Amino acid sequence: MSDLRKQSSALQEKAGISPPEITNKTAINQIKKNRQQQPTSEELIAAILDGNRTALSRAITLAESTNPAHFEKAGAIIQGCLPHANKSIRIGITGVPGVGKSTFIEVFGKHLTQLGKKVAVLAVDPSSSLSHGSILGDKTRMEELVKDENAFIRPSASGETLGGVARKTRETIILCEAAGFDTILIETVGVGQSETAVHSMVDFFLLLKISGAGDELQGIKRGIMEMADAIVINKADGDNIKKSNLAKVEFNRALHLFPKRESSWEPKVTTCSAVTKTGISEIWELISSYFDLTKQSGYFEQKRKDQNHFWMLETINDQLKTNFYNNPEVILALEENKKAVQNNEISSFAAAQSLLQLYFKK
Amino acid sequence: MSDLRKQSSALQEKAGISPPEITNKTAINQIKKNRQQQPTSEELIAAILDGNRTALSRAITLAESTNPAHFEKAGAIIQGCLPHANKSIRIGITGVPGVGKSTFIEVFGKHLTQLGKKVAVLAVDPSSSLSHGSILGDKTRMEELVKDENAFIRPSASGETLGGVARKTRETIILCEAAGFDTILIETVGVGQSETAVHSMVDFFLLLKISGAGDELQGIKRGIMEMADAIVINKADGDNIKKSNLAKVEFNRALHLFPKRESSWEPKVTTCSAVTKTGISEIWELISSYFDLTKQSGYFEQKRKDQNHFWMLETINDQLKTNFYNNPEVILALEENKKAVQNNEISSFAAAQSLLQLYFKK
Repeated sequence: MSDLRKQSSALQEKAGISPPEITNKTAINQIKKNRQQQPTSEELIAAILDGNRTALSRAITLAESTNPAHFEKAGAIIQGCLPHANKSIRIGITGVPGVGKSTFIEVFGKHLTQLGKKVAVLAVDPSSSLSHGSILGDKTRMEELVKDENAFIRPSASGETLGGVARKTRETIILCEAAGFDTILIETVGVGQSETAVHSMVDFFLLLKISGAGDELQGIKRGIMEMADAIVINKADGDNIKKSNLAKVEFNRALHLFPKRESSWEPKVTTCSAVTKTGISEIWELISSYFDLTKQSGYFEQKRKDQNHFWMLETINDQLKTNFYNNPEVILALEENKKAVQNNEISSFAAAQSLLQLYFKK
Repeated sequence: MSDLRKQSSALQEKAGISPPEITNKTAINQIKKNRQQQPTSEELIAAILDGNRTALSRAITLAESTNPAHFEKAGAIIQGCLPHANKSIRIGITGVPGVGKSTFIEVFGKHLTQLGKKVAVLAVDPSSSLSHGSILGDKTRMEELVKDENAFIRPSASGETLGGVARKTRETIILCEAAGFDTILIETVGVGQSETAVHSMVDFFLLLKISGAGDELQGIKRGIMEMADAIVINKADGDNIKKSNLAKVEFNRALHLFPKRESSWEPKVTTCSAVTKTGISEIWELISSYFDLTKQSGYFEQKRKDQNHFWMLETINDQLKTNFYNNPEVILALEENKKAVQNNEISSFAAAQSLLQLYFKK
């Protein structure tokens, strides 16, 4: 390239316009410095333990971050909060869209804060990265609770896998507990295995329903009745009261069919109306009696230990699979093997072996 | 050592007595040669396809072998049989000890061979390496069937993991089908997850029950009602007939509570007596109508494809876990991490990460 062309090139950069002399350089530098100065993990831990909500939000954001640069700091904060966590009760709340989960949590949460509780409301919704948070995303649906200084509402972590979302939510529980929240409500919606995940991270699992056109049980997802410690039939108001009571009878009969629980707790069915605020205190009494029973029997403590262990193994197994299925050679060969296996050209075991060899031979 | 001592040592070997001249050396060599000459995999495949039961048994033993020297040969035989397999119906039969599974399978199997079917009876019992085969081990309990030339009975493969036993059983199915068996009955007993495993390798799943003292459903294991395509109440004879019919009503009502099946098959309840041989042909008609329905709808074919794919993934996941949990460094650190996690000294995620680092760093 000739010197001439080089000089006339549009890509040639010229000195820009200098900043006006009037700009306060000291102020600019101070702003820059402040921006760079993130609080240290020690500072965040201290602030969280002090109940600082901004610090709590910041720590949760770090724990949810997919930026590897944040992993170490997030880990240190969680480790620092851990000795101060775990002194809460954790309640899972599930129900299909339309049963009034948001309204129920709003009213139930307010009831708890009025009793002097500090309530954190979290959500597990692996679909939220697609739907941009179908649950808890719209905080305006919990107008009262969001303004309550004894409540903390955080929408679902986003993520592609339920395992990832679940891990982040479990860490958020630790952070909230360290910040002094003594009652954790975890909302989930019946997507895939999210109920099972939430069930494995709470002490008490509540299934929210509304009365339908009879034959209440037909629409219920497999296995969910067996997980529920209580079934609450919402919208039991006005013309619905009679139907709701009939539904209550039917659910009670169905629950009776299941084997006895290890906790020796017998799941209860009750009705409420979040709109008219009836039945809410009864639900809290019911849940309290569960905690009385299981804390006295030692089941509460044992279940938490089992859950901690379960999630350690679950995280390991998840990661082993992730590594395998993200292996470039495995990716290349997987589809072909799947087809061959489906068409009985190769046995399931032989296909698995050949993929495993690709993976472990590296 | 002196030459003298050496010569007088008791360890000094002297020439033995020569074999008598009369021994036929050619014959001895032939016998030795025959002993060494195991049939090749090609020979075994050909014999299996020819319906040779000895070859079939031999191939199953190879497939069940834990001797790495046999893996390749077993794999070749299964691969050779695969194109000739898959032309059967596979029926899983489960029930707790005492419901009369052996007697039922004996009578049901005989009914099928009398209809001209070729019946293979297998079992999945991961506990059998401990109990030395609690099911199907005692073949004398199927006296008639064991003598039937159109039936082939094979006890459960032994193994420490359900995954291993399941893999071997799936390969045995392939071998039996290639040998011309068109109806595969797979027995299992309610131990751990064995029912789920069997459910994932059969087309039709039958739950055997007996009528109890009312409240039939209380003792039923979680999830098993939802897997059953039919519930058969056995021992419906003599004084038991009335109770069995009541049980039938109760099971029918309970099944009605579950969501619709993907197969659009509605699970059926029926009674029988293996001892008086009543209700047996009705069970076969019921099962046949299931196969008519699902083969016509394409569900049968799709389910088999899904099962093949499922077992490929299951084998991979099993092996990934086995490798991890057998890693010497992981073994050393696992218990400590488990305790720390249970006592809230470290988060589940942090413990998992530290174990994963040990494993992947090698």
